[in-house]
Amino acid sequence: MPGLDEFFHPASVAVIGASRTPGKAGNTVVSNMLEFGFEGRLYPVNPGAGEILGLRCYRSLLEVPGTPDLVIGVLPREKTRDLVAECAREGVRHLIIPTAGFSDVGEAGRGLEDEVVSLARTAGIRLMGPNSIGTVCTSGNMATSIVTLERMREGGISLFGQTGMFSSGIARWIDTSEHFGISKIACLGNKADVDENDLLEYLDADVETRVIGAYTEGVRHGARFARVLRDVAAHKPVLVLKSGRTETGRRAIASHTGALSGSEGIYAGLIEQAGAIRVGDFEEMFDCAKALQWQPLPGGNRVGVVSITGVGCVLAADSAGGFGLVLPPPAAGTVARMRESMPAWAPAANPADIWAAIEAFGPRSAYTTVSLALLGDEGVDSLMVIFTLIPESDLDVVGLFSRLKEDRPGKPLAAVLMAGDAGMCREWKRSLETSGFPTYPSPERALRAIGAMWRYASR
Amino acid sequence: MPGLDEFFHPASVAVIGASRTPGKAGNTVVSNMLEFGFEGRLYPVNPGAGEILGLRCYRSLLEVPGTPDLVIGVLPREKTRDLVAECAREGVRHLIIPTAGFSDVGEAGRGLEDEVVSLARTAGIRLMGPNSIGTVCTSGNMATSIVTLERMREGGISLFGQTGMFSSGIARWIDTSEHFGISKIACLGNKADVDENDLLEYLDADVETRVIGAYTEGVRHGARFARVLRDVAAHKPVLVLKSGRTETGRRAIASHTGALSGSEGIYAGLIEQAGAIRVGDFEEMFDCAKALQWQPLPGGNRVGVVSITGVGCVLAADSAGGFGLVLPPPAAGTVARMRESMPAWAPAANPADIWAAIEAFGPRSAYTTVSLALLGDEGVDSLMVIFTLIPESDLDVVGLFSRLKEDRPGKPLAAVLMAGDAGMCREWKRSLETSGFPTYPSPERALRAIGAMWRYASR
Repeated sequence: MPGLDEFFHPASVAVIGASRTPGKAGNTVVSNMLEFGFEGRLYPVNPGAGEILGLRCYRSLLEVPGTPDLVIGVLPREKTRDLVAECAREGVRHLIIPTAGFSDVGEAGRGLEDEVVSLARTAGIRLMGPNSIGTVCTSGNMATSIVTLERMREGGISLFGQTGMFSSGIARWIDTSEHFGISKIACLGNKADVDENDLLEYLDADVETRVIGAYTEGVRHGARFARVLRDVAAHKPVLVLKSGRTETGRRAIASHTGALSGSEGIYAGLIEQAGAIRVGDFEEMFDCAKALQWQPLPGGNRVGVVSITGVGCVLAADSAGGFGLVLPPPAAGTVARMRESMPAWAPAANPADIWAAIEAFGPRSAYTTVSLALLGDEGVDSLMVIFTLIPESDLDVVGLFSRLKEDRPGKPLAAVLMAGDAGMCREWKRSLETSGFPTYPSPERALRAIGAMWRYASR
Repeated sequence: MPGLDEFFHPASVAVIGASRTPGKAGNTVVSNMLEFGFEGRLYPVNPGAGEILGLRCYRSLLEVPGTPDLVIGVLPREKTRDLVAECAREGVRHLIIPTAGFSDVGEAGRGLEDEVVSLARTAGIRLMGPNSIGTVCTSGNMATSIVTLERMREGGISLFGQTGMFSSGIARWIDTSEHFGISKIACLGNKADVDENDLLEYLDADVETRVIGAYTEGVRHGARFARVLRDVAAHKPVLVLKSGRTETGRRAIASHTGALSGSEGIYAGLIEQAGAIRVGDFEEMFDCAKALQWQPLPGGNRVGVVSITGVGCVLAADSAGGFGLVLPPPAAGTVARMRESMPAWAPAANPADIWAAIEAFGPRSAYTTVSLALLGDEGVDSLMVIFTLIPESDLDVVGLFSRLKEDRPGKPLAAVLMAGDAGMCREWKRSLETSGFPTYPSPERALRAIGAMWRYASR
């Protein structure tokens, strides 16, 4: 069977069911390809239209010059069988079917899905879907999504799974609120042919992908999944969000993508034993992904914490154990270094509450001295620095983090922007993250990411 | 002993240790009072300054005309004893001490704290702190915080606790990213005199306060706390965040506010048995507070869910049980009503995945028909509607929610703005919340708030 590269780097793409009507899926696919600056050949196909978005429109796949590397079939489900037959006749090898109403609606649609897959397999066609929202590849300047996207920032994180959200709402969210950028996205829908094992193997070999995020509602070939996951996780971090934790959830899954979800315990064990990282929701997936993309892996589970506020220290201390982390007391030499910017009566501990130090020495001196001291401690493997964005805490935060990185390049760093002015939080997040330092809105979320990095590092 | 009203509605305020230097705490208190538009008499006190921020400065408390209702003492801790003695001589009844270095630094500071409290008690002075960042009262046009604030939106939520964050970073966060507004804030610091029991009783009687949020690291008088909490929770919702869940957390608390934290199990039971709502973090506190302020309490635990995306249905179904909620199947009549805007092949269920309905009938018709049908079902007590902010989901969302509220005014509503464009999410959040409809970034957070409302309603 052919590989998957044409789903992301096709030289030519045909959109069957292309439409001139804005808002229709067959129009959106074409406009997304143009928005992303696709440099290959793009062929809208529709028997009734002469031109779509300035491109010549073809009456049928037969009319398209040559054989397109990738076909997207935006057609009613009754026409799916004919579409696959036509692709087979034309020698097409890669087909995306966004249409829903197959195994995702239960028994009523399963027969048609089986028939379509069987046709495709016989003809050597790799089929993504049905019920797939499409793919994105930033370096390939392409997006086959049936939902309107804007051109996305390029990065090292690739995502795939049974949800259309990756190629629609989540893609938009990442591009308007995060700074890590995306390499590839694939929405697998019902996974009638192309499934998570195929994607894992493809992204393993993909040099542009440094971190993988996967969402699954249940896998068909459990043993193969465990094996492939272990192989891939040995090369790069894989974050897995598995839904269907409860019986109610599993029933909802059956009517979403028709997947059999399997028991909670089996998946939890399988994912962690494979050396992959299990996450509980999308928020945790992206919190971990950005740290893994930008920061070195920690050499141990001992975290240094510097905080402008006592409650930050308490929340950090309260939650560290749950993420497999400890906050060790600083060594005697570290305490002496911390004391250089702390009032004599304030405790020089870990977590370090530096409010009194800021009042006495100013934020720059307090943050720099105490952070460098804790990061330099031989008993500390990573450092989390907590800020609250009030006028009193203003300082050159990127300068501070650059100095920390220069001082101990092998230890991961994380910034917490805990409350304060929302606009200032967005601005600090942008400054820090475009310099490669991950930020989090709470100590718990930062520690959860550091804990995941340590689990991965120690697998 | 005098009541607490002068901490929030004083007619006259003296700031001892007022400063002309911007950034110094003694300057910030005065500038905050001016920023909030304080209409009473404000007396900066400093032996060396003639004028501070345009106000006449007094050389000592003795020089101030009359006896101020409230004194804020921004002085080094060595001067605290003399300050209290002077307040006693002048007949002051309400004093805030922001200075740290008392029981918050352990045994070294406990003796001084005990002495100061004993002086205050003998003189009939109510003392907030030491180590208190100060108070805020929006209807009183005042903020005694030692951290720079901007004037805040008025609302029905009052907050108090052992963290300075409420009068600093969290106040700023609420005012720049939330829409519910604040009535009163009190930072209790070391709670040497005024404690959570005092605040609970005060806010219980306060007609401006509709919902109470409390953060505590440990209470001194457990039996009284349980009794007071039960009394107050019978009148209005009380959300309690108790830290010190772990041994490491309890050690961090000892060096934050010197509180003895007590065992996790005792507090968990005590809070819920009192009919208050226990929350796990600040995020959950505000998620619940806004729903409780704006929406009616649910009559039961049965939730209707409408979602643009299948994964929203799966996440909702997966998590509902953990919050004590169920998603009941719709009645036959409801299914018939839902079908009016759904393709025949799409399942009319709860949770309702309406992607196919949106494609076939447009977002306005799909959302309105399906939401009205589920909300009108006699087996449904509340409704959660999930949006993903992509161009395809655009509709008059406030119009939709107003119509739902008009149709079933007794059932609480929640909107989920799950991923999509970040700027559009902020705008939709603003539109919905300024109309009294709470929004959440994930189905889990919305259900967590609905679950808390139901626990409170069924206490």
